[in-house]
Amino acid sequence: MKAVRLHKFHTQPVIDDVPEPAIGGPFDVIVKIGGAGVCRTDLHIIEGQWDAAMGTPLPYILGHENAGWVHEVGSAVTNVAVGDTVILHPTPTDGLCHACRAGDDMHCENSEFPGLSRDGGMAEYLLTSARACIKLNPETQPKDVAALADAGITAYHAVRKALPLLYPGTTAVVIGAGGLGHIGIQCLAELTGTNIIVVDRNPDALKLATELGAHHTVVGDGTQVNAVKDLTGGQGAHVVFDFVAEQGAEMDGWNMTRPAGSYYVIGYGGTLTIPTLDIISTERNIIGNIVGTYNDLVELMALAQAGKVTLHTKTYPLDAAPDAFADLDAGRVRGRAILVP
Amino acid sequence: MKAVRLHKFHTQPVIDDVPEPAIGGPFDVIVKIGGAGVCRTDLHIIEGQWDAAMGTPLPYILGHENAGWVHEVGSAVTNVAVGDTVILHPTPTDGLCHACRAGDDMHCENSEFPGLSRDGGMAEYLLTSARACIKLNPETQPKDVAALADAGITAYHAVRKALPLLYPGTTAVVIGAGGLGHIGIQCLAELTGTNIIVVDRNPDALKLATELGAHHTVVGDGTQVNAVKDLTGGQGAHVVFDFVAEQGAEMDGWNMTRPAGSYYVIGYGGTLTIPTLDIISTERNIIGNIVGTYNDLVELMALAQAGKVTLHTKTYPLDAAPDAFADLDAGRVRGRAILVP
Amino acid sequence: MKAVRLHKFHTQPVIDDVPEPAIGGPFDVIVKIGGAGVCRTDLHIIEGQWDAAMGTPLPYILGHENAGWVHEVGSAVTNVAVGDTVILHPTPTDGLCHACRAGDDMHCENSEFPGLSRDGGMAEYLLTSARACIKLNPETQPKDVAALADAGITAYHAVRKALPLLYPGTTAVVIGAGGLGHIGIQCLAELTGTNIIVVDRNPDALKLATELGAHHTVVGDGTQVNAVKDLTGGQGAHVVFDFVAEQGAEMDGWNMTRPAGSYYVIGYGGTLTIPTLDIISTERNIIGNIVGTYNDLVELMALAQAGKVTLHTKTYPLDAAPDAFADLDAGRVRGRAILVP
Amino acid sequence: MKAVRLHKFHTQPVIDDVPEPAIGGPFDVIVKIGGAGVCRTDLHIIEGQWDAAMGTPLPYILGHENAGWVHEVGSAVTNVAVGDTVILHPTPTDGLCHACRAGDDMHCENSEFPGLSRDGGMAEYLLTSARACIKLNPETQPKDVAALADAGITAYHAVRKALPLLYPGTTAVVIGAGGLGHIGIQCLAELTGTNIIVVDRNPDALKLATELGAHHTVVGDGTQVNAVKDLTGGQGAHVVFDFVAEQGAEMDGWNMTRPAGSYYVIGYGGTLTIPTLDIISTERNIIGNIVGTYNDLVELMALAQAGKVTLHTKTYPLDAAPDAFADLDAGRVRGRAILVP
Repeated sequence: MKAVRLHKFHTQPVIDDVPEPAIGGPFDVIVKIGGAGVCRTDLHIIEGQWDAAMGTPLPYILGHENAGWVHEVGSAVTNVAVGDTVILHPTPTDGLCHACRAGDDMHCENSEFPGLSRDGGMAEYLLTSARACIKLNPETQPKDVAALADAGITAYHAVRKALPLLYPGTTAVVIGAGGLGHIGIQCLAELTGTNIIVVDRNPDALKLATELGAHHTVVGDGTQVNAVKDLTGGQGAHVVFDFVAEQGAEMDGWNMTRPAGSYYVIGYGGTLTIPTLDIISTERNIIGNIVGTYNDLVELMALAQAGKVTLHTKTYPLDAAPDAFADLDAGRVRGRAILVP
Repeated sequence: MKAVRLHKFHTQPVIDDVPEPAIGGPFDVIVKIGGAGVCRTDLHIIEGQWDAAMGTPLPYILGHENAGWVHEVGSAVTNVAVGDTVILHPTPTDGLCHACRAGDDMHCENSEFPGLSRDGGMAEYLLTSARACIKLNPETQPKDVAALADAGITAYHAVRKALPLLYPGTTAVVIGAGGLGHIGIQCLAELTGTNIIVVDRNPDALKLATELGAHHTVVGDGTQVNAVKDLTGGQGAHVVFDFVAEQGAEMDGWNMTRPAGSYYVIGYGGTLTIPTLDIISTERNIIGNIVGTYNDLVELMALAQAGKVTLHTKTYPLDAAPDAFADLDAGRVRGRAILVP
Repeated sequence: MKAVRLHKFHTQPVIDDVPEPAIGGPFDVIVKIGGAGVCRTDLHIIEGQWDAAMGTPLPYILGHENAGWVHEVGSAVTNVAVGDTVILHPTPTDGLCHACRAGDDMHCENSEFPGLSRDGGMAEYLLTSARACIKLNPETQPKDVAALADAGITAYHAVRKALPLLYPGTTAVVIGAGGLGHIGIQCLAELTGTNIIVVDRNPDALKLATELGAHHTVVGDGTQVNAVKDLTGGQGAHVVFDFVAEQGAEMDGWNMTRPAGSYYVIGYGGTLTIPTLDIISTERNIIGNIVGTYNDLVELMALAQAGKVTLHTKTYPLDAAPDAFADLDAGRVRGRAILVP
Repeated sequence: MKAVRLHKFHTQPVIDDVPEPAIGGPFDVIVKIGGAGVCRTDLHIIEGQWDAAMGTPLPYILGHENAGWVHEVGSAVTNVAVGDTVILHPTPTDGLCHACRAGDDMHCENSEFPGLSRDGGMAEYLLTSARACIKLNPETQPKDVAALADAGITAYHAVRKALPLLYPGTTAVVIGAGGLGHIGIQCLAELTGTNIIVVDRNPDALKLATELGAHHTVVGDGTQVNAVKDLTGGQGAHVVFDFVAEQGAEMDGWNMTRPAGSYYVIGYGGTLTIPTLDIISTERNIIGNIVGTYNDLVELMALAQAGKVTLHTKTYPLDAAPDAFADLDAGRVRGRAILVP
């Protein structure tokens, strides 16, 4: 089958012809890919940022944001059957460790991360497990929803964690109205009565943000911290969701957070430098966020299938993966790029 | 009356003779001080660290950790009467703003902080408000409990916030077994089934920690991060309470925190420098903590009066305040120094 | 001034001429009433249902749902000034007890309940306290928002408590789409992604429910439990909000609640009879609800002033109070009846 | 193998010779039983109380509280190996449904309940699944811990759910200091600073309660509601844990619950009859409880292996099962009866 493989860090992935994956265990599931999202993390992987953390042997197939149809199942699989339309939680988990048993799958002690730690979904077929599959209405087109499998779940996870903080009368800031942020804005608008301020350098992204529910937008032109302060009586926001967290956004995000407020880090790449006096004198929090739980994705699919979260995507054939990477890197993708094998 | 006043930053406070405070409003309360704690924050104030944050006009009376007896009350005070033994919440609050109405007094929009923002309790009498008073059993000696009014409430507040994270089978690290830490250890031992590891440079402090409920102690000799990792299967602790947060303890604390864990900052003075990738790839949190709520202090007094939290203190006459400051600065105080007018 | 007073249980209240209230303490506030809601609880009071619980001496002025303008303030009032437009939390509280300090004003140990435990707002002027006042935009018309002061806060309080249970993919049932229910539906639609089913005997109420955000409606014709089961795959709802809780609605509500679900009691008058085996074998909960906190009302006003919660009201002059009572009793009021002095 | 089987409701179970269970699927585990607890629910099953709810075909092997050693494993089992000492969560679950994914195993959509819905552990061998096994230290004696598998987990689950309500200064009532209650008392003493009142008809049980951490005991002689009111300033308890919930204990438990408090139902057999006015005017809650989650049992084992929860048991050979049933029914068992094959 065709697959987009990374052979070496700092070089572009290439389209290879590789063997199809095979069922190995009773809970294995092979999915025929209908859509595989292209994520900024793919660019970061190519740049080698994740090398140390993941220790992935090269070459391997990229693609950690996948949806498709069940192609083959192991002997003990009961929750999906061949032909089912599915979206995939990014990490097949063991279902046995304390984290899995607490509903906190992302911290499974024995999980894998196809597309990061082993072959992913930028290919015709993907090997995953029964526990990663969420069955969808048969009429759903995998390419239309694939972006929810990583961009969506990550945005939803952060918003859901913050819900108890965002009662009516509060303010939330979203930094970055791109692939993740444009979903986060919709989740905030649907699930809270908070006042939503969106910060982005790109006026088009801000226009989209307003259409999706932002109450105020702020151009990231260097005056954004003061602009947010002005919109919040000098206090800052109760919660700041930072979908960028690099190139200075990270300190902006912290500085936009009001006393007793929380700064949610979702993007990455930058470095925070904060005196502990600033943390304690204001009793502010910094909250890490990584992807989300299986149930997060189930809930997000419920919102999506009710029409309450919509995606802005641009599709490419699998062979055009290099174009998709280049477009993303150059800021030419509005919403999310999706490869369709 | 006699009072310990700071006239100039970077110089020692002096014992002055000043007028007694007078009742000004219907909710004012004047307390005859029975004990006023000496806190590392007093040293930090003298050093000028809080000048910018608090903007306090000099000279003023130090002392933000106070207990005593009600001496005079305003016309509308109903919750205490002249002669009552009381411990004082550090911040008289308005009871009207959103924070007060949410039980989050420390973030009152109109609070004062006697001993920081105006005259404190290192004196014979202190002006406070009805909302700051907690009535105690008449047999309680104010000097025996004063340290709970700031050291105690601060340690309790952080521990209480973390309780849902500290189910049986988890590990908590306490960095610093001094004035605050020795109370935090007792609260953890009393209110959780967590495994308690205490880190301190001082072997005597670690000996006390063990007596108070620590399961493991680690000498802060430069190998403390690895020692905590070794005690936790290489993972680190679910929660780290950092009562130091300066001189490198702050990065140690972060590095001792396991994935999905939380680093609670309580001490201050140092600076955190953390890549956002480290925050998101492990989904760790950094939690600010500042003093505590009125109800926190009520709850802590319930523990103390049941004998479940005990204090290690050393008393000094008010005139000997300079000795108390010097002893604290030199590390010669085990537990807490208390001035007795 | 004119006032609607109850002289004897089981007889209708009458319009009396009584002295205006006077400021007695430093935190007292006198409000010129702009709108006073008529509530089913007023009918229950007249019928004597609350006599034992409240022990109210007769005659007294009815009216526990009030908004208006500040007319006079005590010497220590700082949060409102003469002329301010205000809505009133139903219970002036002491701000000093554990409940008030925990943000749980409704359980204040020293609260009063004007309109139940002493003179209420069906009059030209009402005596309340600074802690009960919420300042509104000056252009707000008290008669337009008064219904939020009791019907609104009560519905909001119950919905807010249940928010963590109502993630996307869940189902909530609302029993009773009247004065409280029609606000509860809007809060659910605005603050959750839950699937909303509304049950009412009155087809007009169900039509309004659909306009306000209900996804399904069920006529309360005796088949309502099965209808809810049919709409929920045989399981019942995750949360049932029972705004009726009498005449059989109470057992219907319990029986519509799915395993691990919660039945929220808000209305009253009926009696639950439930084997403990039914409670434990399904691990269901029964949750009591009474009015709400001051902050609940602040948050609801934020929603209302953003146009996200709208009220259906019918106004009557104060002199026409008997007509308002009669209309409510006969089911002739759509939404809420408001007296305007 | 020998097994204790129920052939007919309302008759005593008998010791039969039956075939050993066999591995059927890749996640099956066969456990050699080291200890099987005898529970009041076994008596209720014999009496036919659970017949309708569970629909169990007769004859079948009783025993839902089991520990032992792994005897054989299916092809895909990774978390335990032959020879491991294990305690068993009562319900093998699918690990795939929303409840399992939320850490709420007891509400698994596809669980079984050996000893209720199919063959249980009063036998030499038991068939369960990998997801039900918790691996213990090899030196643990299964007969010493078996009672934690149902009595323990159930008591712990209820206490753990209530922890946020039981801050220092509160009061908790435990009704029934028997098999479950004597564990609940220890969990409360270990994990909270609450004031513990224990109510039981049996003075010996109250003596044990005091040894295990109760602060006050009340004999259930008809004056118990007033006695609890007297111990709580007339208010009642913040939380009442009712391990009996029959023969009048259920209404006592409700009546001992203070305003804004919660009544936790754990035992069963009686019927609650409560006006909805009583629920709303006091804003009290009734909380159902059923067994507990897998992680609950993991946490309880952590407490037990640290020596913080100890069991009072009486062992019987498997052949003496009829004696154990008779002793339990006659109130002759202090703590828990355990069958040892």
